[in-house]
Amino acid sequence: MEFIEAYQSAYLRFADAQLWDKTPLNLYHPIHYITEAAGKRIRPVLTLMACEAFSKEYNQALPFSYAVEIFHNFTLMHDDIMDHAEKRRGLPSAHIQYGLPQAILSGDVMMIYAFTYLLNIENKEMANIAARFFSEIAIGVCEGQQLDMDFESQAQVSIDDYIQMITLKTSILLGASLQLGALAGGAGQDVQRQLFVFGKYIGIAFQIHDDILDVFGEVNKTGKKHAGDIINSKKTYLYLKSLELCTPEQREKLIRYYTSESVDIHEKIEYVTGIYKELAVLEYANLLKEAYLQLGKSHLQSLSVDNQVITNLEKLADYLIERDY
Amino acid sequence: MEFIEAYQSAYLRFADAQLWDKTPLNLYHPIHYITEAAGKRIRPVLTLMACEAFSKEYNQALPFSYAVEIFHNFTLMHDDIMDHAEKRRGLPSAHIQYGLPQAILSGDVMMIYAFTYLLNIENKEMANIAARFFSEIAIGVCEGQQLDMDFESQAQVSIDDYIQMITLKTSILLGASLQLGALAGGAGQDVQRQLFVFGKYIGIAFQIHDDILDVFGEVNKTGKKHAGDIINSKKTYLYLKSLELCTPEQREKLIRYYTSESVDIHEKIEYVTGIYKELAVLEYANLLKEAYLQLGKSHLQSLSVDNQVITNLEKLADYLIERDY
Repeated sequence: MEFIEAYQSAYLRFADAQLWDKTPLNLYHPIHYITEAAGKRIRPVLTLMACEAFSKEYNQALPFSYAVEIFHNFTLMHDDIMDHAEKRRGLPSAHIQYGLPQAILSGDVMMIYAFTYLLNIENKEMANIAARFFSEIAIGVCEGQQLDMDFESQAQVSIDDYIQMITLKTSILLGASLQLGALAGGAGQDVQRQLFVFGKYIGIAFQIHDDILDVFGEVNKTGKKHAGDIINSKKTYLYLKSLELCTPEQREKLIRYYTSESVDIHEKIEYVTGIYKELAVLEYANLLKEAYLQLGKSHLQSLSVDNQVITNLEKLADYLIERDY
Repeated sequence: MEFIEAYQSAYLRFADAQLWDKTPLNLYHPIHYITEAAGKRIRPVLTLMACEAFSKEYNQALPFSYAVEIFHNFTLMHDDIMDHAEKRRGLPSAHIQYGLPQAILSGDVMMIYAFTYLLNIENKEMANIAARFFSEIAIGVCEGQQLDMDFESQAQVSIDDYIQMITLKTSILLGASLQLGALAGGAGQDVQRQLFVFGKYIGIAFQIHDDILDVFGEVNKTGKKHAGDIINSKKTYLYLKSLELCTPEQREKLIRYYTSESVDIHEKIEYVTGIYKELAVLEYANLLKEAYLQLGKSHLQSLSVDNQVITNLEKLADYLIERDY
């Protein structure tokens, strides 16, 4: 995606200038490890794009973009512990590489640094607004992770519950990335909010996409373990929609495979994937993803910004949920 | 301690009005659990006392005192995981009570709330100063915890290294409690700093005291497991001073007991405690504790505040390191 490369480069230049080779080495190494291995830096790109929509100079949003990305990496580091995820971006997760105490503590300090970057920007009034807004978002993200874990042992989870969970866990941070960029660029509150809502809906589409990739994606592209959600009995859209569509017999068997601790993992993956294919839930997932994508885009229409900005944001949204499976 | 009761009560009234019975319950229950079981609330008391030294109205410092205490409880929750501490304040530690993922995530959200409380105070300029200062302290506390863990496997640790570690891990938060209170009360920067330094030195004395209690304290008073530091091979002052004072034969045996994974725990505790008694390191520890106490108090002398304030702060310092063993 050529049009985001300039933002990625600007972000990487800023990120590389942040020194994580400080002491105690054991505290800061894992931060270096996870931030270096990072993927597309979508969140910082969103922040910089949103800033540029309202200001010629998007460099002023770099500390915001860095705060968002380092917070995101903190959540990955801690979530991977909670979710027993042993791989991340094709590498061992931080707690596998450095041990549990390290991954906890390095995650903690990353989260503090996220606040530090927001608080240290020059315009102190803006810093306060940004940090307060960010603390609300950060609390929401933790609540989302909690709901995600709760769902594992909760018998009844509706698709609405699921949407609420991924909204908190994933989407509001994408929305916040845009809102912070718009704030840095001098946009008014209404406009900031529209961009937040755009990001929120795109984020929902993005998470549904992520659920799909877990089962149908290529491992060498996702960098994660294949079918980790099935292994961890995550109540994904694919699973919940299957429950809705299946026969009573299939339902009984699907629930048994999903909840039994003693079932063979390979057998579990094979059976569940089979049901998904039989019920064509992938098609439903793609429809829902598309619906949220369009809903998100509709919030861009009322913005009085350059058409190129809207086109680019739309292109980025499409890119996020590209079918590469 | 009668003179601190008014502060404790004011703090508890404020704390009780903060509602942690929200959803998701699994996220907020552990917060309720650890904050309810809390001890003397020394840090909030320090904040309120420092505020009152400069302002008739110490209620304005309540959000600061709450931020400090909730941050402190976050560190306890995460440190107990890292240190394999199964008891806290006479109760099972949060990760024992609620499981590891819970203790990680509830700790995370507590830390975010600490920032939220600081950022939401009415005077936004003060909020920013407080939150920026606090983020520096919070980073230092994490670095201190890291050093503490590093020392477990590090062959050479000097008493200077140890003092640096406890300064970061424990003392600067006590100093910060005072500085934030003074800030809330309208004190100038120099005065805030003097109180920070007072708190820092008192904190060092307090940590040495804590090391003593681990071995020589009564379990029903400490609420912790007896000799947890010995079990976890923590490089405490008692241990490091023993290494300095012992014969080469004792040294070889002490290091072997402390570093071997295969040694029987009861035998380890018995041998190490025996060496401590033989070398009278308790006396050295008490001398050093006393020295830091006096050093701390000396920083109160230049303050132009009411004599009663100084007397109360001195009394509080004495109270913190009272010999109840």
